[in-house]
Amino acid sequence: MPAGVAIDPAKIAQQMRRRQLGYGRGPRMQFEPDSVEFLAGLRKGKTLGSPIAMAIKNKDASIDRLPVVTQPRPGHADLTGAIKYDHRDIRNVLERASARETAARVAVGAVCRQFLEPFGIDLASHVVGLGSVRAKPAAATIAQIRAKAEPTPLRCLDAAATKAMVQEIDACMKVGDTLGGVFEVVVEGVPLGLGSHVHYDRRLDAILGAAILSIHAVKGVEIGDGVLGATLPGSKVQDEIFYSKAAGFTRSSNRAGGFEGGMTNGTTVVVRGFMKPLSTLKKPLRSVEINTKKPVVGTVERTDVTTVPAAGVVGEAMLAFEISKAMLEKFGGDSLKEIQRNHRAYLKQAAAF
Amino acid sequence: MPAGVAIDPAKIAQQMRRRQLGYGRGPRMQFEPDSVEFLAGLRKGKTLGSPIAMAIKNKDASIDRLPVVTQPRPGHADLTGAIKYDHRDIRNVLERASARETAARVAVGAVCRQFLEPFGIDLASHVVGLGSVRAKPAAATIAQIRAKAEPTPLRCLDAAATKAMVQEIDACMKVGDTLGGVFEVVVEGVPLGLGSHVHYDRRLDAILGAAILSIHAVKGVEIGDGVLGATLPGSKVQDEIFYSKAAGFTRSSNRAGGFEGGMTNGTTVVVRGFMKPLSTLKKPLRSVEINTKKPVVGTVERTDVTTVPAAGVVGEAMLAFEISKAMLEKFGGDSLKEIQRNHRAYLKQAAAF
Amino acid sequence: MPAGVAIDPAKIAQQMRRRQLGYGRGPRMQFEPDSVEFLAGLRKGKTLGSPIAMAIKNKDASIDRLPVVTQPRPGHADLTGAIKYDHRDIRNVLERASARETAARVAVGAVCRQFLEPFGIDLASHVVGLGSVRAKPAAATIAQIRAKAEPTPLRCLDAAATKAMVQEIDACMKVGDTLGGVFEVVVEGVPLGLGSHVHYDRRLDAILGAAILSIHAVKGVEIGDGVLGATLPGSKVQDEIFYSKAAGFTRSSNRAGGFEGGMTNGTTVVVRGFMKPLSTLKKPLRSVEINTKKPVVGTVERTDVTTVPAAGVVGEAMLAFEISKAMLEKFGGDSLKEIQRNHRAYLKQAAAF
Amino acid sequence: MPAGVAIDPAKIAQQMRRRQLGYGRGPRMQFEPDSVEFLAGLRKGKTLGSPIAMAIKNKDASIDRLPVVTQPRPGHADLTGAIKYDHRDIRNVLERASARETAARVAVGAVCRQFLEPFGIDLASHVVGLGSVRAKPAAATIAQIRAKAEPTPLRCLDAAATKAMVQEIDACMKVGDTLGGVFEVVVEGVPLGLGSHVHYDRRLDAILGAAILSIHAVKGVEIGDGVLGATLPGSKVQDEIFYSKAAGFTRSSNRAGGFEGGMTNGTTVVVRGFMKPLSTLKKPLRSVEINTKKPVVGTVERTDVTTVPAAGVVGEAMLAFEISKAMLEKFGGDSLKEIQRNHRAYLKQAAAF
Repeated sequence: MPAGVAIDPAKIAQQMRRRQLGYGRGPRMQFEPDSVEFLAGLRKGKTLGSPIAMAIKNKDASIDRLPVVTQPRPGHADLTGAIKYDHRDIRNVLERASARETAARVAVGAVCRQFLEPFGIDLASHVVGLGSVRAKPAAATIAQIRAKAEPTPLRCLDAAATKAMVQEIDACMKVGDTLGGVFEVVVEGVPLGLGSHVHYDRRLDAILGAAILSIHAVKGVEIGDGVLGATLPGSKVQDEIFYSKAAGFTRSSNRAGGFEGGMTNGTTVVVRGFMKPLSTLKKPLRSVEINTKKPVVGTVERTDVTTVPAAGVVGEAMLAFEISKAMLEKFGGDSLKEIQRNHRAYLKQAAAF
Repeated sequence: MPAGVAIDPAKIAQQMRRRQLGYGRGPRMQFEPDSVEFLAGLRKGKTLGSPIAMAIKNKDASIDRLPVVTQPRPGHADLTGAIKYDHRDIRNVLERASARETAARVAVGAVCRQFLEPFGIDLASHVVGLGSVRAKPAAATIAQIRAKAEPTPLRCLDAAATKAMVQEIDACMKVGDTLGGVFEVVVEGVPLGLGSHVHYDRRLDAILGAAILSIHAVKGVEIGDGVLGATLPGSKVQDEIFYSKAAGFTRSSNRAGGFEGGMTNGTTVVVRGFMKPLSTLKKPLRSVEINTKKPVVGTVERTDVTTVPAAGVVGEAMLAFEISKAMLEKFGGDSLKEIQRNHRAYLKQAAAF
Repeated sequence: MPAGVAIDPAKIAQQMRRRQLGYGRGPRMQFEPDSVEFLAGLRKGKTLGSPIAMAIKNKDASIDRLPVVTQPRPGHADLTGAIKYDHRDIRNVLERASARETAARVAVGAVCRQFLEPFGIDLASHVVGLGSVRAKPAAATIAQIRAKAEPTPLRCLDAAATKAMVQEIDACMKVGDTLGGVFEVVVEGVPLGLGSHVHYDRRLDAILGAAILSIHAVKGVEIGDGVLGATLPGSKVQDEIFYSKAAGFTRSSNRAGGFEGGMTNGTTVVVRGFMKPLSTLKKPLRSVEINTKKPVVGTVERTDVTTVPAAGVVGEAMLAFEISKAMLEKFGGDSLKEIQRNHRAYLKQAAAF
Repeated sequence: MPAGVAIDPAKIAQQMRRRQLGYGRGPRMQFEPDSVEFLAGLRKGKTLGSPIAMAIKNKDASIDRLPVVTQPRPGHADLTGAIKYDHRDIRNVLERASARETAARVAVGAVCRQFLEPFGIDLASHVVGLGSVRAKPAAATIAQIRAKAEPTPLRCLDAAATKAMVQEIDACMKVGDTLGGVFEVVVEGVPLGLGSHVHYDRRLDAILGAAILSIHAVKGVEIGDGVLGATLPGSKVQDEIFYSKAAGFTRSSNRAGGFEGGMTNGTTVVVRGFMKPLSTLKKPLRSVEINTKKPVVGTVERTDVTTVPAAGVVGEAMLAFEISKAMLEKFGGDSLKEIQRNHRAYLKQAAAF
């Protein structure tokens, strides 16, 4: 993180809160606001250029005193993690593997957002699918998301769909089942030319895809209309190029989700994550006790029906982090002032192309 | 690449050929078999442990003599790459950005496959969707893919779907349109415990996802039933855990595509790529000449209708590469003998868990 | 860090204390024992395989309240850091650039030592030069260092030299000057074959050299008799190879400091760091106030005459860290048990060569 | 490598020739000029921004046909490499481990130099010690090195020392012995603020030190007066800071070799490498045949007495490479034009500090 970036703790707290919201969460989440403490890297409210360390304390008892776990939950890291790391107490795996870890990601993302802000880069997310319900497809601006989706129980733009989603959640809650869904992260203000076509591992769309896939329970990702586009003819999928003196080069549409050749093309970045339903059901799944090797059914540990809205917030954080890295790679620099100067001069160069 | 891996050039040539096949390719591809020359890293047919260098020569004229390009093609790296790298000749971007680059990936993957072979790790791919046609969903073994999909024109397991796909390709060819689709890569024999839950960037499913997304025109990826799973209740998505003396821990199904908590769980790895239709149509798209800024329509450069089967071959190569890296990280070692010894001992440890 | 490594806090505390000792330190150091708190990665005294986080709290006032600094000290990061990161308050540079940061390195190194211990890898350091005094050259074992150097005021094996060093320190203290020197780090039990000749950036001697050079005020490094060897004819510098059934391959001497071709050769690793005298003198150096651009003389901040013995302790920590990484790369594995098994099998293979 | 850098093959050829010169080389070197072929990354004489591939062909027979080697040479990678990589034919190690590999480094460095040239960054080297002879210590500018050292047989600035060095070489040649020495690499024009104090692995002096240590037979390195400085009192080692309107901040001297706090401080970078004598003597060293385990004496393979001047050329190449990386990290950018613009603006900012 470069020097000179103003960090407002209130903005971090706001993101931490957003991660804990969403219709379908159990009661636990609503009573534990996470607070972030800075251990290093800030002075008088600004970054120093040196590493930043933050801590989020758990309110639970010491991990040392928590009971031994020997029943691996299907769909979790439990069994595989225990065998890989040679643990006989699954507790040694599950605490770290827990989605609680995404609190740290959101904290890091909240710092990155404040780095991106002076460049006019902003991020938002909304839910576009929950269980069997899909919101009406429509390109969304951040302003629209903030105004219309953010205040709703599932952070969804489509009011009719929201109603159906809430009903599906309520129905699931009654039978002790869970729901997955699809969230969309939208990033505006990203300059043309982040990422690169020159090496497969520098394609920013692939990097962002991995960042989204790394979120707990996310098992699919698409850039723009990736899944739908695979079913259409080429004549219906492309974004044609136009030019006007006022706007420079523009595209007729944004089916590519802001990317061409692995590089941002200056339009809005759109990435969607497909999240499977939580693996912990009230009606538990069959498993095996690891010592006796006898069949068991999993213990019931949580009561969330769905966390798709929260996963969208984590998705924003992940993209904020990866886009920050791409900005630093593209513009170099050690102080915010220097990076902004390099950024401005590049935008001018691009506009004069 | 460790020392002592036997490299058979015929196996590399076979993979290079597979990349060039598939119904829907233009005539060009069928006349240019790519040949791979080893510049370093091999001696007497075995790897040395030192870096491997390979070259695939182009048959085209020298890149220096190819004509200047000033009309960026929508959906390609052309315009963005030219602005980012400050090129006024788009040729400087398009040659490197071309999917021709995947020949190098397949060559590398073909080497990696021969590293993986002694560990019993094998890869195959098949087409599960093309244009509007979807193959009947069914878990596929590599033996089945080799026997039933590989010899067919689109490397698809479902004969009825294949017929419909061929018809859709023929129809597109007539009107000069293109088609995308969905390929599935299947990896068998991957040991439990590659990747990790401990850091987001060590989750192997995310790494494999990025590798697939990095392939030209791939805009979506799913692990197991990622996209479908997002629409189902939790009770229909999980893979329960069982145990038998003979087989050890097993799962009732493989909806997770071989991953739990970012780690391979010992079952078959299944990853699908969603490929958009090729951006170069016979009926070209609108664009802008970069010097005059006047509207133009793109030039027609190629006549492939679809390359989804080839993309599957590239997908195999990418996964072979990334899984090789994960194997080296998990088992360490400098010679094949050493890695095999570590692998065997770990499998024994895992079986005794 | 793999799972299953027992971490004894007392061993960490012992290393932290060692960093604070040595004749020639000012009074401050003797009253502030650093204590290390584990924030993550341990449970019931063992590593989990997940990341380890440690914190060492400062006793000083909050960094926010410390006064503004505008006089850069020659020989420190002050002026360059302020310009690079665009700080007008040099405090923003000097706190992070302070050698106080090596407390964190020693803490990390103390964890790594406990990982290395089960492999029979041990590290020690001693002072071989201080100011104009040089200890009598002699190959030193860790047992000798522990017995004869560790308890002495300068951690030097040569009693006569120690006496002369203490006198030189006393003389410097009177006139307010400072002294540098040379420390040697010795590592025993390192298996043959860490590092590699195949790429310049995998040569472990170069990596260890960088680790030592990264320590504050260290401006030179040698592997074995590197500096002396450059002045001798080849016939006096090499280590000939012998073989006996009992000992396997052995060398006649260890002028190479345990390395051939960038790889450990199974003999003792010997690396020396050349430390310049501390830049902060009682008789301060000329500098420039950064706002007025007027000449000033530096402020007097500390009263250490020399910290070469402490730098040796930091050197041990750096080598423990880098050798741990090299061990993990060579032997792979996720649990201590697995790595030990791979290590044992490799030693057997090497012995049978 | 960014786009738009003009690459002159003649400048590469010149560096390749420089690596092959120097009094004390055997006759072989003088008849084999290495030529570099570009396989990728260039078009019409300029870099494209995509990866550069170069090949240097060996004139020797195919590596497959070269005879089996079973006698490891002391001081080489031979024995350790064979055991580590499990080779019974030492040929599999020694070809890659050969200092012949530095031809590739010099080729890469020659490309990097042409990237650095537009920024006014230039590099030169000279020999400051050979065997028991040391050149008179004196700060050297590149202009002086080019004028006075480059044309001499050992690329040494001190004519009297050169004479003594030549005599020592002649004497060694007669008895079949070899000689090491010390080379100094000087880099001018490096902007203030490359590298960083914030993390140990970003200190550029440590990175450059590792790059020098990675050269074959180099066993020691110093930044500025690192080795000498360790013996002096602090009052004689520092570089005081001054300011004048015309020159900005200046130092009274450059004992620190251009670095403070791991960052370049805007003065000349000075790094010295200590090279041990070549391990291959005419009067061969004792070793062991690896199959019979019987004592043997090494075979005589080459007749160079010393290659210290050539090692200096390799040292230039390594620093050119690492400083190029540091420039790209500091200034970002994808085209030479963009990086130059960022560089100019930063220099202006630094001058106005």
